[in-house]
Amino acid sequence: MKRKVLVIEGDGIGKEVIPEAVKLLTLLGDFEILKGDAGLECYRRCKEFLPRETLEKAEESDIILFGAVTSPKGVKDYKSPILTLRKTFNLYANVRPINNFGLLRLEGYLGKNKFLDVKNVDLVIIRENTEDLYVGFERELYDIAIADRVVSKKASERIVRFAFEYAKENKRKRVSCIHKANVLKVTDGLFLKTFYEVAKNYKIEADDYLVDSASYLLIKEPERFDVIVTTNMFGDILSDEASLLLGSLGLAPSANIGERKALFEPVHGSAPDIAGKGIANPMAAILCVAMIFDYIGEKEKGNLIREAIKHCIEEGKVTKDLGGSLKTHEVAEEIIKYVTNY
Amino acid sequence: MKRKVLVIEGDGIGKEVIPEAVKLLTLLGDFEILKGDAGLECYRRCKEFLPRETLEKAEESDIILFGAVTSPKGVKDYKSPILTLRKTFNLYANVRPINNFGLLRLEGYLGKNKFLDVKNVDLVIIRENTEDLYVGFERELYDIAIADRVVSKKASERIVRFAFEYAKENKRKRVSCIHKANVLKVTDGLFLKTFYEVAKNYKIEADDYLVDSASYLLIKEPERFDVIVTTNMFGDILSDEASLLLGSLGLAPSANIGERKALFEPVHGSAPDIAGKGIANPMAAILCVAMIFDYIGEKEKGNLIREAIKHCIEEGKVTKDLGGSLKTHEVAEEIIKYVTNY
Ligand SMILES: CC(C)[C@H](C(=O)O)[C@@H](O)C(=O)O
Ligand SMILES: CC(C)[C@H](C(=O)O)[C@@H](O)C(=O)O
Repeated sequence: MKRKVLVIEGDGIGKEVIPEAVKLLTLLGDFEILKGDAGLECYRRCKEFLPRETLEKAEESDIILFGAVTSPKGVKDYKSPILTLRKTFNLYANVRPINNFGLLRLEGYLGKNKFLDVKNVDLVIIRENTEDLYVGFERELYDIAIADRVVSKKASERIVRFAFEYAKENKRKRVSCIHKANVLKVTDGLFLKTFYEVAKNYKIEADDYLVDSASYLLIKEPERFDVIVTTNMFGDILSDEASLLLGSLGLAPSANIGERKALFEPVHGSAPDIAGKGIANPMAAILCVAMIFDYIGEKEKGNLIREAIKHCIEEGKVTKDLGGSLKTHEVAEEIIKYVTNY
Repeated sequence: MKRKVLVIEGDGIGKEVIPEAVKLLTLLGDFEILKGDAGLECYRRCKEFLPRETLEKAEESDIILFGAVTSPKGVKDYKSPILTLRKTFNLYANVRPINNFGLLRLEGYLGKNKFLDVKNVDLVIIRENTEDLYVGFERELYDIAIADRVVSKKASERIVRFAFEYAKENKRKRVSCIHKANVLKVTDGLFLKTFYEVAKNYKIEADDYLVDSASYLLIKEPERFDVIVTTNMFGDILSDEASLLLGSLGLAPSANIGERKALFEPVHGSAPDIAGKGIANPMAAILCVAMIFDYIGEKEKGNLIREAIKHCIEEGKVTKDLGGSLKTHEVAEEIIKYVTNY
């Protein structure tokens, strides 16, 4: 039986990059493709940001490919569809590979003195995706608002084990835990303790960093990091920050992985400013397709796509965000040409 | 009556950079200098990280100049002296100027295509310093740990007003609020709402960013930002990250300001790896002295020190972290030479 993939294009450039990604998906694999609606335009049509019908299709799918949605202004009780999908299907591991294909060079000068030189960035951020400040427990009394930051042993163990298994499978050398246990002694204390307990079962290096220090070192000395595991909110911040190392958000894919299902989404948003012009970079969406093949155990196909993207970057066959002049569909065509001639 | 300054050198390079900073302080101003003990070496001597005697001296001082302390490993119930000082004296505003003196250039290439070009960075991060995840309310039940994230109207108003007053006084054009109100609707919702309420009273631009997006844009497009105001933990992360724009933590000073008292501290830690070699960069500590002069209303002296530092950087009279070969005391001597010949 074919695997079912639910495709949710969403808003803005989601509608431009996802169709290109689907071309790669169906070219290299054999899936049953479903289509689902979500986002702001969907809301304008049917008063729902994530219709029940889409959730039902998601339920019966193995994989979700999600574009991007535009957040509304001034809609009370708005809940991002992506948060609902994560919660509904318990997609507990958020995986963000930061791989610049060895092509980016970041240099810094102070006067004549070079101090930054970043090449060959290849790290992965694994973010706990279900709890922390995302549990949605907030309350207000008089003029004081309080949110619960929840860290459980169970979820900590699960995400840390996921990180070490990921490291093992992908022949990574080190897992670094990022936390703020010097201030959050109980919550991050639990996370950090669990990290080192789980680490004992693996022959993989384990170390840890405070989140403030990590936010500095991540860009300054990215070669320190290999696999990073962290709690939800720190992961949210650090993974967007790490995209700096790619030069463009247009190169950043992500996966949200659960026990039975996984959702893949480019990190960039719906980008209303460039939507409709056909100039959005489809590479992040196409890298999501590579992650889908990794996920179903067809890693050679994932690698082939990544190779094609590396090739296009080397040849300057890129969109404007990377300094090129190609259109969205032209970049996709170049990638398709590469993988079909292979 | 002379203003009293309590000097706490602390550990590691704190003991090397602070004495140089004190030279500038006493050269340009007329203060009564007290000395106080704190940190790991202090603990080894007297079993306290922040002795009562130091707290008493802090109580009677107007200003505290704080070096850096080394965190102990495995000391239960350790509380960072800096956190205790902030709490005891209600130092509610953490101010971190990020000014690269127009000398840093960050460039990025992807293939032949330039996409990053950062010059003349000059922004200020103002961090709420008393609440958020720093209130110290944490609990554990079975295998679940919970921390309270507290945001009050009162503290939000106070820090936002501080930020706008700062902007006004320093002729800044824009204040940006950084938050995560799309997830933390109640707590950061309150912070954001308060921000725009207070903003109405000023003729200064006001805008806001989500923290994840801000962590990307802060480095990618720092020219977007002028004055930033944010909650405690996000401020902790973003301000360390922003130090990237300086090339070295050795150029990052900070102030912790309360109603009656203020504490100044270089952002770098005690740096055990380079301590004792006389090669630590004293500029951050000396920039703290510039901030002390700003604080007491002697801004020309603050500016003179900053000019001296700019001059030293231009001339390559810098320590190793900035690519130079001068010793800690030699850099300080160059700065002193500049300000005395002025
Ligand atoms: C849209 C938003 C709620 C979401 C998050 O905070 O997790 C996004 O920033 C992400 O990283 O996927
Ligand atoms: C030492 C630590 C508790 C402190 C903080 O988290 O506030 C430090 O990182 C800072 O920014 O001054």
